[in-house]
Amino acid sequence: MTTAAPAPAPSGRDLPHPPCEEIRLESVLHALSDPMRLQVVRELAADGGELSCSHFVLPVTKSTTTHHFRVLRESGVIRQVYRGTAKMNGLRADDLEALFPGLLGRVLEAAARQSDRLGGR
Amino acid sequence: MTTAAPAPAPSGRDLPHPPCEEIRLESVLHALSDPMRLQVVRELAADGGELSCSHFVLPVTKSTTTHHFRVLRESGVIRQVYRGTAKMNGLRADDLEALFPGLLGRVLEAAARQSDRLGGR
Repeated sequence: MTTAAPAPAPSGRDLPHPPCEEIRLESVLHALSDPMRLQVVRELAADGGELSCSHFVLPVTKSTTTHHFRVLRESGVIRQVYRGTAKMNGLRADDLEALFPGLLGRVLEAAARQSDRLGGR
Repeated sequence: MTTAAPAPAPSGRDLPHPPCEEIRLESVLHALSDPMRLQVVRELAADGGELSCSHFVLPVTKSTTTHHFRVLRESGVIRQVYRGTAKMNGLRADDLEALFPGLLGRVLEAAARQSDRLGGR
């Protein structure tokens, strides 16, 4: 019996992300079920690229904002990487599409429809 | 100024349901984000009709089961009605389709795909 060599210790600046095979539908739906997290996902989808955390001005404390981004990252919805001093966020749209075809698009459509209906964003 | 006549007191056996205009995407996604609730929804969708609460044998206590059905009802995902002594459950598929076209179908497809991938149900 052999044991695998230990993986290199991650740098303190490398944030953990689930590989595709560990992404679960229930966790993705949970991540999307919070109004603020859903708003972040809508903005990332509209942008199509990466946005820094400081781009988002949410009406909550900084630690709550950090929590929301962590839930999105740990569920596999977004990828967070440090670029210089900025923490950048991007949707894992391709990974989600491969796992759950059409799902993210329908959620985004539903969110847009609801915003129109309620007269909000 | 007049006051409306008081609404008739609901029967103790009438369960409260949100009207369509009060159903929120975030609450629907939250209701679907639990593995047991998602399983209940999948069974109701496969059946296409009404199933009694006692049809579902979930590996949790009766009070937890009742909680899961209440979350599904209060979010607008299912309708619960008493028929005789049985509490019957049906998906509000038409209401959800009108509010969020295609969403429930994509979630059900994603759930089936994930079950196939993980070798479970």
